[in-house]
Amino acid sequence: MTQENTLAALAAVIESRKPTNGGNPETSYVARLLAKGSDSFLKKIGEEATEVVMAAKDVDYGADKDKLVYEVADLWFHSMVMLAHYGLSAQDVLRELARREGLSGLVEKAQRSDS
Amino acid sequence: MTQENTLAALAAVIESRKPTNGGNPETSYVARLLAKGSDSFLKKIGEEATEVVMAAKDVDYGADKDKLVYEVADLWFHSMVMLAHYGLSAQDVLRELARREGLSGLVEKAQRSDS
Amino acid sequence: MTQENTLAALAAVIESRKPTNGGNPETSYVARLLAKGSDSFLKKIGEEATEVVMAAKDVDYGADKDKLVYEVADLWFHSMVMLAHYGLSAQDVLRELARREGLSGLVEKAQRSDS
Amino acid sequence: MTQENTLAALAAVIESRKPTNGGNPETSYVARLLAKGSDSFLKKIGEEATEVVMAAKDVDYGADKDKLVYEVADLWFHSMVMLAHYGLSAQDVLRELARREGLSGLVEKAQRSDS
Repeated sequence: MTQENTLAALAAVIESRKPTNGGNPETSYVARLLAKGSDSFLKKIGEEATEVVMAAKDVDYGADKDKLVYEVADLWFHSMVMLAHYGLSAQDVLRELARREGLSGLVEKAQRSDS
Repeated sequence: MTQENTLAALAAVIESRKPTNGGNPETSYVARLLAKGSDSFLKKIGEEATEVVMAAKDVDYGADKDKLVYEVADLWFHSMVMLAHYGLSAQDVLRELARREGLSGLVEKAQRSDS
Repeated sequence: MTQENTLAALAAVIESRKPTNGGNPETSYVARLLAKGSDSFLKKIGEEATEVVMAAKDVDYGADKDKLVYEVADLWFHSMVMLAHYGLSAQDVLRELARREGLSGLVEKAQRSDS
Repeated sequence: MTQENTLAALAAVIESRKPTNGGNPETSYVARLLAKGSDSFLKKIGEEATEVVMAAKDVDYGADKDKLVYEVADLWFHSMVMLAHYGLSAQDVLRELARREGLSGLVEKAQRSDS
Protein backbone atom coordinates (compact mmCIF):
# COMPACT_ATOMS: atom_id res chain seq x y z
CA MET A 1 0.00 0.00 0.00
CA THR A 2 1.42 3.40 -0.90
CA GLN A 3 1.48 6.41 1.41
CA GLU A 4 -0.66 8.28 -1.07
CA ASN A 5 -3.33 5.62 -0.93
CA THR A 6 -3.31 5.54 2.85
CA LEU A 7 -3.86 9.28 3.21
CA ALA A 8 -6.56 9.28 0.52
CA ALA A 9 -8.30 6.24 2.04
CA LEU A 10 -8.16 7.76 5.51
CA ALA A 11 -9.55 11.05 4.20
CA ALA A 12 -12.38 9.14 2.51
CA VAL A 13 -13.25 7.31 5.74
CA ILE A 14 -13.27 10.58 7.70
CA GLU A 15 -15.38 12.26 5.00
CA SER A 16 -17.96 9.46 5.28
CA ARG A 17 -18.16 10.06 9.04
CA LYS A 18 -19.29 13.69 8.68
CA PRO A 19 -22.80 14.06 10.15
CA THR A 20 -23.92 15.58 6.82
CA ASN A 21 -22.74 12.39 5.11
CA GLY A 22 -24.61 10.11 7.47
CA GLY A 23 -21.88 9.57 10.06
CA ASN A 24 -23.41 8.36 13.33
CA PRO A 25 -22.01 9.98 16.52
CA GLU A 26 -23.30 7.04 18.55
CA THR A 27 -21.24 4.44 16.74
CA SER A 28 -18.31 6.40 15.26
CA TYR A 29 -15.61 8.26 17.18
CA VAL A 30 -14.86 10.52 14.22
CA ALA A 31 -18.55 11.32 13.71
CA ARG A 32 -18.72 12.21 17.42
CA LEU A 33 -15.75 14.60 17.18
CA LEU A 34 -17.16 16.24 14.05
CA ALA A 35 -20.65 16.53 15.55
CA LYS A 36 -19.32 18.17 18.71
CA GLY A 37 -17.52 20.85 16.73
CA SER A 38 -14.03 22.28 16.53
CA ASP A 39 -13.13 22.54 20.22
CA SER A 40 -13.45 18.76 20.56
CA PHE A 41 -10.76 17.87 18.02
CA LEU A 42 -8.60 20.96 18.61
CA LYS A 43 -8.31 19.89 22.23
CA LYS A 44 -7.25 16.45 21.00
CA ILE A 45 -4.51 18.00 18.85
CA GLY A 46 -3.01 19.64 21.94
CA GLU A 47 -3.35 16.42 23.89
CA GLU A 48 -1.87 14.20 21.18
CA ALA A 49 1.05 16.59 20.60
CA THR A 50 1.81 16.27 24.31
CA GLU A 51 1.62 12.47 24.07
CA VAL A 52 4.05 12.54 21.15
CA VAL A 53 6.48 14.56 23.26
CA MET A 54 6.13 12.15 26.22
CA ALA A 55 6.62 9.09 24.03
CA ALA A 56 9.69 10.69 22.40
CA LYS A 57 11.23 11.43 25.80
CA ASP A 58 10.66 7.78 26.74
CA VAL A 59 12.52 6.74 23.58
CA ASP A 60 15.34 9.12 24.57
CA TYR A 61 15.65 7.05 27.75
CA GLY A 62 15.55 3.69 26.02
CA ALA A 63 11.89 2.83 25.46
CA ASP A 64 10.66 1.05 22.38
CA LYS A 65 9.71 3.27 19.40
CA ASP A 66 6.31 1.66 18.78
CA LYS A 67 4.49 3.96 21.18
CA LEU A 68 6.03 7.00 19.46
CA VAL A 69 4.83 5.86 16.04
CA TYR A 70 1.40 5.24 17.57
CA GLU A 71 1.21 8.73 19.07
CA VAL A 72 2.35 10.48 15.87
CA ALA A 73 -0.35 8.49 14.05
CA ASP A 74 -2.88 9.80 16.60
CA LEU A 75 -1.65 13.37 16.07
CA TRP A 76 -1.82 13.15 12.27
CA PHE A 77 -5.18 11.37 12.45
CA HIS A 78 -6.75 14.16 14.51
CA SER A 79 -5.10 16.71 12.20
CA MET A 80 -6.92 15.05 9.31
CA VAL A 81 -10.25 15.07 11.16
CA MET A 82 -9.70 18.80 11.66
CA LEU A 83 -8.74 19.37 8.02
CA ALA A 84 -11.93 17.55 6.93
CA HIS A 85 -14.04 19.74 9.23
CA TYR A 86 -12.65 22.85 7.54
CA GLY A 87 -13.05 21.47 4.01
CA LEU A 88 -9.31 20.98 3.71
CA SER A 89 -7.23 17.87 3.11
CA ALA A 90 -3.79 16.35 3.57
CA GLN A 91 -3.28 17.26 -0.08
CA ASP A 92 -3.40 20.97 0.84
CA VAL A 93 -0.82 20.42 3.58
CA LEU A 94 1.49 18.41 1.35
CA ARG A 95 1.22 21.05 -1.39
CA GLU A 96 2.34 23.65 1.15
CA LEU A 97 5.23 21.42 2.26
CA ALA A 98 6.26 20.89 -1.36
CA ARG A 99 6.15 24.61 -2.05
CA ARG A 100 8.76 25.31 0.61
CA GLU A 101 12.47 25.40 -0.07
CA GLY A 102 12.24 24.26 -3.65
CA LEU A 103 11.00 20.85 -2.60
CA SER A 104 8.80 20.97 -5.64
CA GLY A 105 11.90 21.12 -7.82
CA LEU A 106 13.43 18.20 -5.97
CA VAL A 107 10.34 16.08 -6.41
CA GLU A 108 10.16 16.77 -10.14
CA LYS A 109 13.81 15.83 -10.40
CA ALA A 110 13.13 12.59 -8.48
CA GLN A 111 10.25 11.83 -10.80
CA ARG A 112 12.41 12.37 -13.88
CA SER A 113 15.12 10.07 -12.53
CA ASP A 114 12.43 7.45 -11.87
CA SER A 115 11.56 7.24 -15.52
CA MET B 1 3.09 15.90 -7.82
CA THR B 2 1.67 13.08 -5.71
CA GLN B 3 1.41 13.09 -1.92
CA GLU B 4 3.63 10.05 -1.81
CA ASN B 5 6.39 11.85 -3.67
CA THR B 6 6.14 14.89 -1.44
CA LEU B 7 6.56 12.94 1.80
CA ALA B 8 9.41 10.88 0.36
CA ALA B 9 11.16 13.98 -1.05
CA LEU B 10 10.74 15.83 2.24
CA ALA B 11 12.12 12.84 4.17
CA ALA B 12 15.11 12.74 1.82
CA VAL B 13 15.82 16.44 2.34
CA ILE B 14 15.60 16.05 6.13
CA GLU B 15 17.84 12.97 6.00
CA SER B 16 20.47 14.94 4.10
CA ARG B 17 20.43 17.59 6.83
CA LYS B 18 21.46 15.16 9.58
CA PRO B 19 24.83 16.23 11.00
CA THR B 20 26.11 12.69 10.29
CA ASN B 21 25.16 13.19 6.63
CA GLY B 22 26.94 16.50 6.35
CA GLY B 23 24.07 18.81 7.33
CA ASN B 24 25.42 22.19 8.40
CA PRO B 25 23.77 23.71 11.50
CA GLU B 26 25.02 27.14 10.46
CA THR B 27 23.16 27.21 7.17
CA SER B 28 20.27 24.75 7.65
CA TYR B 29 17.40 25.09 10.10
CA VAL B 30 16.78 21.33 10.09
CA ALA B 31 20.46 20.56 10.67
CA ARG B 32 20.36 23.00 13.59
CA LEU B 33 17.34 21.28 15.19
CA LEU B 34 18.90 17.84 14.71
CA ALA B 35 22.27 18.96 16.08
CA LYS B 36 20.69 20.49 19.19
CA GLY B 37 18.94 17.22 20.03
CA SER B 38 15.43 16.09 20.82
CA ASP B 39 14.28 18.86 23.18
CA SER B 40 14.70 21.41 20.38
CA PHE B 41 12.21 19.82 17.98
CA LEU B 42 9.91 18.36 20.66
CA LYS B 43 9.42 21.89 21.95
CA LYS B 44 8.56 22.95 18.39
CA ILE B 45 5.92 20.20 18.18
CA GLY B 46 4.16 21.63 21.23
CA GLU B 47 4.48 25.14 19.85
CA GLU B 48 3.26 24.26 16.36
CA ALA B 49 0.31 22.27 17.72
CA THR B 50 -0.68 25.41 19.64
CA GLU B 51 -0.35 27.50 16.48
CA VAL B 52 -2.58 25.03 14.63
CA VAL B 53 -5.21 25.44 17.34
CA MET B 54 -4.99 29.25 17.21
CA ALA B 55 -5.23 29.33 13.42
CA ALA B 56 -8.24 26.96 13.52
CA LYS B 57 -10.03 29.18 16.05
CA ASP B 58 -9.39 32.14 13.74
CA VAL B 59 -11.01 30.19 10.90
CA ASP B 60 -13.96 29.46 13.21
CA TYR B 61 -14.41 33.22 13.44
CA GLY B 62 -14.09 33.87 9.72
CA ALA B 63 -10.37 34.06 8.95
CA ASP B 64 -8.88 32.72 5.76
CA LYS B 65 -7.83 29.05 5.81
CA ASP B 66 -4.33 29.63 4.36
CA LYS B 67 -2.77 30.22 7.78
CA LEU B 68 -4.27 26.96 9.07
CA VAL B 69 -2.80 24.95 6.19
CA TYR B 70 0.53 26.67 6.83
CA GLU B 71 0.50 25.77 10.53
CA VAL B 72 -0.48 22.12 9.94
CA ALA B 73 2.39 21.95 7.44
CA ASP B 74 4.70 23.27 10.18
CA LEU B 75 3.40 20.66 12.62
CA TRP B 76 3.83 17.77 10.19
CA PHE B 77 7.22 19.09 9.09
CA HIS B 78 8.56 19.11 12.65
CA SER B 79 6.98 15.67 13.20
CA MET B 80 9.03 14.44 10.25
CA VAL B 81 12.23 16.00 11.60
CA MET B 82 11.53 14.14 14.85
CA LEU B 83 10.80 10.87 13.05
CA ALA B 84 14.11 11.20 11.17
CA HIS B 85 15.99 11.78 14.42
CA TYR B 86 14.61 8.52 15.81
CA GLY B 87 15.28 6.55 12.62
CA LEU B 88 11.58 6.47 11.80
CA SER B 89 9.65 7.81 8.83
CA ALA B 90 6.24 8.98 7.65
CA GLN B 91 5.95 5.50 6.15
CA ASP B 92 5.88 4.01 9.68
CA VAL B 93 3.16 6.44 10.72
CA LEU B 94 1.06 5.79 7.62
CA ARG B 95 1.42 2.04 8.10
CA GLU B 96 0.05 2.45 11.65
CA LEU B 97 -2.83 4.59 10.32
CA ALA B 98 -3.60 1.98 7.67
CA ARG B 99 -3.58 -0.81 10.23
CA ARG B 100 -6.38 0.82 12.22
CA GLU B 101 -10.04 0.07 11.65
CA GLY B 102 -9.52 -2.08 8.61
CA LEU B 103 -8.28 0.86 6.60
CA SER B 104 -5.90 -1.54 4.93
CA GLY B 105 -8.87 -3.47 3.54
CA LEU B 106 -10.45 -0.25 2.33
CA VAL B 107 -7.31 0.79 0.52
CA GLU B 108 -6.95 -2.54 -1.24
CA LYS B 109 -10.58 -2.28 -2.31
CA ALA B 110 -9.95 1.25 -3.62
CA GLN B 111 -6.93 0.00 -5.54
CA ARG B 112 -8.94 -2.80 -7.15
CA SER B 113 -11.70 -0.40 -8.19
CA ASP B 114 -9.04 1.86 -9.73
CA SER B 115 -7.96 -0.82 -12.14
CA MET C 1 -9.64 34.43 51.67
CA THR C 2 -6.09 35.33 50.66
CA GLN C 3 -4.25 33.94 47.66
CA GLU C 4 -1.65 32.49 49.99
CA ASN C 5 -4.28 30.56 51.91
CA THR C 6 -5.86 29.24 48.74
CA LEU C 7 -2.64 27.81 47.34
CA ALA C 8 -1.68 26.32 50.71
CA ALA C 9 -5.15 24.84 51.24
CA LEU C 10 -5.18 23.40 47.71
CA ALA C 11 -1.72 21.89 48.23
CA ALA C 12 -2.91 20.32 51.49
CA VAL C 13 -5.95 18.79 49.79
CA ILE C 14 -3.78 17.38 46.99
CA GLU C 15 -1.27 16.05 49.52
CA SER C 16 -4.06 14.19 51.34
CA ARG C 17 -5.06 12.55 48.07
CA LYS C 18 -1.69 10.87 47.55
CA PRO C 19 -2.14 7.08 47.63
CA THR C 20 0.57 6.94 50.33
CA ASN C 21 -1.57 9.29 52.43
CA GLY C 22 -4.72 7.23 52.03
CA GLY C 23 -6.12 8.91 48.91
CA ASN C 24 -8.65 6.63 47.23
CA PRO C 25 -8.42 6.42 43.42
CA GLU C 26 -11.98 5.14 43.27
CA THR C 27 -13.50 8.22 44.87
CA SER C 28 -10.95 10.98 44.20
CA TYR C 29 -9.91 12.37 40.81
CA VAL C 30 -6.59 13.61 42.19
CA ALA C 31 -5.85 10.26 43.85
CA ARG C 32 -6.59 8.61 40.50
CA LEU C 33 -4.15 10.88 38.62
CA LEU C 34 -1.45 10.36 41.25
CA ALA C 35 -1.98 6.58 41.32
CA LYS C 36 -1.73 6.32 37.52
CA GLY C 37 1.62 8.10 37.51
CA SER C 38 3.20 11.03 35.72
CA ASP C 39 1.95 10.48 32.16
CA SER C 40 -1.65 10.88 33.35
CA PHE C 41 -1.26 14.40 34.69
CA LEU C 42 1.43 15.51 32.21
CA LYS C 43 -1.03 14.72 29.43
CA LYS C 44 -3.60 16.86 31.24
CA ILE C 45 -1.15 19.77 31.37
CA GLY C 46 -0.85 19.71 27.58
CA GLU C 47 -4.61 19.38 27.23
CA GLU C 48 -5.43 22.16 29.69
CA ALA C 49 -2.87 24.51 28.13
CA THR C 50 -4.65 23.96 24.81
CA GLU C 51 -8.01 24.68 26.43
CA VAL C 52 -6.61 27.92 27.87
CA VAL C 53 -5.51 28.93 24.37
CA MET C 54 -8.94 28.09 22.89
CA ALA C 55 -10.79 29.97 25.62
CA ALA C 56 -8.51 32.99 25.16
CA LYS C 57 -9.15 33.03 21.40
CA ASP C 58 -12.88 32.96 22.15
CA VAL C 59 -12.43 36.00 24.40
CA ASP C 60 -10.52 37.70 21.57
CA TYR C 61 -13.69 37.31 19.50
CA GLY C 62 -16.05 38.56 22.18
CA ALA C 63 -16.80 35.59 24.46
CA ASP C 64 -17.23 35.95 28.20
CA LYS C 65 -14.04 35.67 30.29
CA ASP C 66 -15.43 33.13 32.79
CA LYS C 67 -14.41 30.15 30.69
CA LEU C 68 -10.85 31.50 30.43
CA VAL C 69 -10.55 31.87 34.21
CA TYR C 70 -11.93 28.35 34.56
CA GLU C 71 -9.37 26.89 32.14
CA VAL C 72 -6.40 28.68 33.74
CA ALA C 73 -7.62 27.30 37.08
CA ASP C 74 -7.60 23.82 35.50
CA LEU C 75 -4.06 24.37 34.19
CA TRP C 76 -2.72 25.60 37.51
CA PHE C 77 -4.59 22.87 39.38
CA HIS C 78 -2.98 20.11 37.31
CA SER C 79 0.38 21.89 37.65
CA MET C 80 -0.04 21.61 41.43
CA VAL C 81 -0.95 17.92 41.24
CA MET C 82 2.27 17.45 39.26
CA LEU C 83 4.33 19.49 41.73
CA ALA C 84 2.95 17.36 44.60
CA HIS C 85 3.88 14.17 42.76
CA TYR C 86 7.48 15.37 42.50
CA GLY C 87 7.64 16.55 46.11
CA LEU C 88 7.54 20.17 45.00
CA SER C 89 5.05 22.94 45.75
CA ALA C 90 3.66 26.23 44.49
CA GLN C 91 6.01 27.79 47.04
CA ASP C 92 9.00 26.56 44.99
CA VAL C 93 7.52 28.05 41.83
CA LEU C 94 6.72 31.38 43.46
CA ARG C 95 10.22 31.54 44.94
CA GLU C 96 11.62 31.11 41.43
CA LEU C 97 9.29 33.82 40.10
CA ALA C 98 10.34 36.16 42.92
CA ARG C 99 14.01 35.52 42.22
CA ARG C 100 13.68 36.80 38.67
CA GLU C 101 14.23 40.42 37.75
CA GLY C 102 14.64 41.67 41.30
CA LEU C 103 11.02 40.96 42.10
CA SER C 104 12.19 40.03 45.56
CA GLY C 105 13.39 43.60 46.10
CA LEU C 106 10.05 44.96 44.88
CA VAL C 107 8.11 42.78 47.27
CA GLU C 108 10.21 43.80 50.26
CA LYS C 109 9.64 47.43 49.31
CA ALA C 110 5.89 46.78 49.09
CA GLN C 111 5.95 45.14 52.50
CA ARG C 112 7.75 48.11 54.05
CA SER C 113 5.23 50.53 52.59
CA ASP C 114 2.46 48.37 54.04
CA SER C 115 3.67 48.92 57.57
CA MET D 1 8.18 36.65 51.39
CA THR D 2 4.66 35.24 51.23
CA GLN D 3 3.18 33.62 48.15
CA GLU D 4 0.47 36.25 48.17
CA ASN D 5 3.01 39.03 47.97
CA THR D 6 4.88 37.36 45.15
CA LEU D 7 1.83 37.01 42.93
CA ALA D 8 0.70 40.54 43.69
CA ALA D 9 4.17 41.95 43.05
CA LEU D 10 4.50 40.03 39.81
CA ALA D 11 1.06 41.22 38.68
CA ALA D 12 2.09 44.81 39.46
CA VAL D 13 5.29 44.48 37.41
CA ILE D 14 3.35 43.02 34.47
CA GLU D 15 0.72 45.76 34.75
CA SER D 16 3.45 48.41 34.55
CA ARG D 17 4.72 46.81 31.33
CA LYS D 18 1.45 47.29 29.46
CA PRO D 19 2.03 49.64 26.51
CA THR D 20 -0.82 51.82 27.84
CA ASN D 21 1.07 52.14 31.13
CA GLY D 22 4.30 53.15 29.44
CA GLY D 23 5.84 49.69 28.99
CA ASN D 24 8.56 49.82 26.35
CA PRO D 25 8.57 46.89 23.88
CA GLU D 26 12.19 47.64 23.02
CA THR D 27 13.50 47.13 26.53
CA SER D 28 10.91 44.86 28.17
CA TYR D 29 10.05 41.30 27.18
CA VAL D 30 6.60 41.54 28.78
CA ALA D 31 5.86 44.84 27.05
CA ARG D 32 6.88 43.20 23.77
CA LEU D 33 4.49 40.26 24.28
CA LEU D 34 1.64 42.57 25.26
CA ALA D 35 2.29 44.92 22.34
CA LYS D 36 2.30 42.04 19.83
CA GLY D 37 -1.10 40.85 21.01
CA SER D 38 -2.64 37.61 22.19
CA ASP D 39 -1.15 35.14 19.70
CA SER D 40 2.34 35.97 20.96
CA PHE D 41 1.76 34.91 24.57
CA LEU D 42 -0.80 32.17 23.78
CA LYS D 43 1.86 30.51 21.65
CA LYS D 44 4.23 30.77 24.61
CA ILE D 45 1.69 29.03 26.87
CA GLY D 46 1.64 26.04 24.52
CA GLU D 47 5.42 26.08 24.30
CA GLU D 48 5.99 26.40 28.05
CA ALA D 49 3.46 23.64 28.82
CA THR D 50 5.48 21.39 26.51
CA GLU D 51 8.69 22.37 28.27
CA VAL D 52 7.09 21.53 31.63
CA VAL D 53 6.21 18.08 30.28
CA MET D 54 9.74 17.51 28.93
CA ALA D 55 11.35 18.63 32.21
CA ALA D 56 8.99 16.36 34.20
CA LYS D 57 9.89 13.36 32.02
CA ASP D 58 13.56 14.12 32.64
CA VAL D 59 12.86 14.08 36.40
CA ASP D 60 11.09 10.72 35.94
CA TYR D 61 14.39 9.44 34.59
CA GLY D 62 16.53 10.91 37.35
CA ALA D 63 17.22 14.52 36.40
CA ASP D 64 17.40 17.29 38.95
CA LYS D 65 14.08 19.04 39.76
CA ASP D 66 15.39 22.59 39.33
CA LYS D 67 14.61 22.69 35.62
CA LEU D 68 11.03 21.56 36.31
CA VAL D 69 10.48 24.35 38.83
CA TYR D 70 11.95 26.78 36.32
CA GLU D 71 9.61 25.64 33.54
CA VAL D 72 6.47 25.74 35.74
CA ALA D 73 7.51 29.27 36.72
CA ASP D 74 7.72 30.11 32.99
CA LEU D 75 4.26 28.62 32.40
CA TRP D 76 2.64 30.48 35.28
CA PHE D 77 4.48 33.68 34.36
CA HIS D 78 3.12 33.63 30.81
CA SER D 79 -0.33 32.74 32.21
CA MET D 80 -0.14 35.92 34.27
CA VAL D 81 0.90 38.02 31.27
CA MET D 82 -2.16 36.62 29.50
CA LEU D 83 -4.46 37.29 32.47
CA ALA D 84 -3.20 40.91 32.58
CA HIS D 85 -3.90 41.34 28.87
CA TYR D 86 -7.51 40.28 29.43
CA GLY D 87 -7.96 42.45 32.51
CA LEU D 88 -7.90 39.39 34.76
CA SER D 89 -5.57 38.42 37.59
CA ALA D 90 -4.20 35.49 39.55
CA GLN D 91 -6.78 36.48 42.17
CA ASP D 92 -9.58 35.50 39.76
CA VAL D 93 -7.93 32.13 39.15
CA LEU D 94 -7.36 31.45 42.84
CA ARG D 95 -10.96 32.41 43.63
CA GLU D 96 -12.10 29.82 41.06
CA LEU D 97 -9.78 27.21 42.59
CA ALA D 98 -11.10 28.00 46.09
CA ARG D 99 -14.71 27.72 44.90
CA ARG D 100 -14.19 24.12 43.79
CA GLU D 101 -14.82 21.14 46.03
CA GLY D 102 -15.49 23.14 49.16
CA LEU D 103 -11.92 24.37 49.30
CA SER D 104 -13.30 27.65 50.55
CA GLY D 105 -14.69 25.85 53.61
CA LEU D 106 -11.35 24.17 54.20
CA VAL D 107 -9.48 27.44 54.08
CA GLU D 108 -11.84 29.10 56.54
CA LYS D 109 -11.39 26.15 58.85
CA ALA D 110 -7.62 26.44 58.53
CA GLN D 111 -7.83 30.15 59.33
CA ARG D 112 -9.92 29.48 62.44
CA SER D 113 -7.45 26.88 63.70
CA ASP D 114 -4.64 29.40 63.16
CA SER D 115 -6.13 31.78 65.66
